[in-house]
Amino acid sequence: MSVTRKAVVLLSGGLDSTTALAIASAEGFEIYAMSFQYGQRHALEIESARKVAAAAGVAKHLVVDFDMRAIGGSALTDEIAVPKDRLDNEAPAEIPVTYVPARNTIFLSFALAWAETLSAEDIFIGVNALDYSGYPDCRPEYIESFERMANLATKAGVEERLRLKIHAPLIEMTKAQIIKTGLELGVDYSLTHSCYDPTREGLACGRCDSCLLRLKGFAEAGARDPLPYASA
Amino acid sequence: MSVTRKAVVLLSGGLDSTTALAIASAEGFEIYAMSFQYGQRHALEIESARKVAAAAGVAKHLVVDFDMRAIGGSALTDEIAVPKDRLDNEAPAEIPVTYVPARNTIFLSFALAWAETLSAEDIFIGVNALDYSGYPDCRPEYIESFERMANLATKAGVEERLRLKIHAPLIEMTKAQIIKTGLELGVDYSLTHSCYDPTREGLACGRCDSCLLRLKGFAEAGARDPLPYASA
Repeated sequence: MSVTRKAVVLLSGGLDSTTALAIASAEGFEIYAMSFQYGQRHALEIESARKVAAAAGVAKHLVVDFDMRAIGGSALTDEIAVPKDRLDNEAPAEIPVTYVPARNTIFLSFALAWAETLSAEDIFIGVNALDYSGYPDCRPEYIESFERMANLATKAGVEERLRLKIHAPLIEMTKAQIIKTGLELGVDYSLTHSCYDPTREGLACGRCDSCLLRLKGFAEAGARDPLPYASA
Repeated sequence: MSVTRKAVVLLSGGLDSTTALAIASAEGFEIYAMSFQYGQRHALEIESARKVAAAAGVAKHLVVDFDMRAIGGSALTDEIAVPKDRLDNEAPAEIPVTYVPARNTIFLSFALAWAETLSAEDIFIGVNALDYSGYPDCRPEYIESFERMANLATKAGVEERLRLKIHAPLIEMTKAQIIKTGLELGVDYSLTHSCYDPTREGLACGRCDSCLLRLKGFAEAGARDPLPYASA
């Protein structure tokens, strides 16, 4: 109970990762927030992440740059159209086109490097298995497998000085539960950003899968989404 | 035997990864070479990688940029002094200061993303457990663990369309065995680069752990290292 424990928190500036950060903070961790600029179509994500990190008073916020466009393979980094206005029953059984190949693995690997440098044992990631059931790297068995690998990959694991833990506190929550949890912890969701395809002015479209999920979540949580929407 | 299989090969331009590439090529794979510019002290590594990729006639060579300096923690990216003139019996039991936190995990994660985009099932990495026994992420159990994780992380693994395999063909070889294998496959080692601390003119120092290992390997293989050395 002596020293404050450090945690690396993956922060996209979206609703989920912002809530995961609030949970880590509520658990008493000193927060080292990590974001990625990887050839997203819009820089709004990073702007949201910066606002969230500042509001949460994190110890440090690191933005790592790399270029996923060279690798390709996703509607979020390539010029594939983002699907709009899909109803629930149209939700695809297969993996969505917005899936970015190995994205969480890349993010967690950088978080691992930073955790090792900081002598931190804890990494938080806001993945969710319910709403993103089509994403292989949002499933509990994936997170567990990454944790096992991480403990073999690092000095900490080998020398058994530290035991790395990947926390995915939202993994079994519905969007409404995530929002309720965040609101109880005082999260200001007006700072967050979820839209896959915002307008030039930075407004959320209100029609992509991510906006629809978010709006449904707020409705089910009985709360009002503080974000302005282009199609409201 | 119909279509040529693609393999992503991690290529630093060093002796080991160049040999791993030659092995993948000899096994009949079409080569997608991947290198990283991550705040190394010198850009010579990338230059070597480009020469090796060109000489091998790879299908594509991708250089991914990111900045490890922001994360810190290693003599290869920070301003920690590289040890010189160490004798074998001085080789440290603990992990060397030249260890870069989670480096192979980051590299393999990017390779995984590219493999998924290419629908490639095979990734080659030139890690070696004997000469780099101090590096946790050069051990067979680490490679196996990454492979298990990779098959949970990706569409390919989930849909069971593909089965990802991480090849580490050098993992149990001595440096002399690696060099003999490469020479048999026609590798031109004058294109490669191993030094942790080259001169301003780009000459290998001949005194850091990496140069000493390389020179010893050539001596044991009964071959001449075609590289010029500053201290020769």
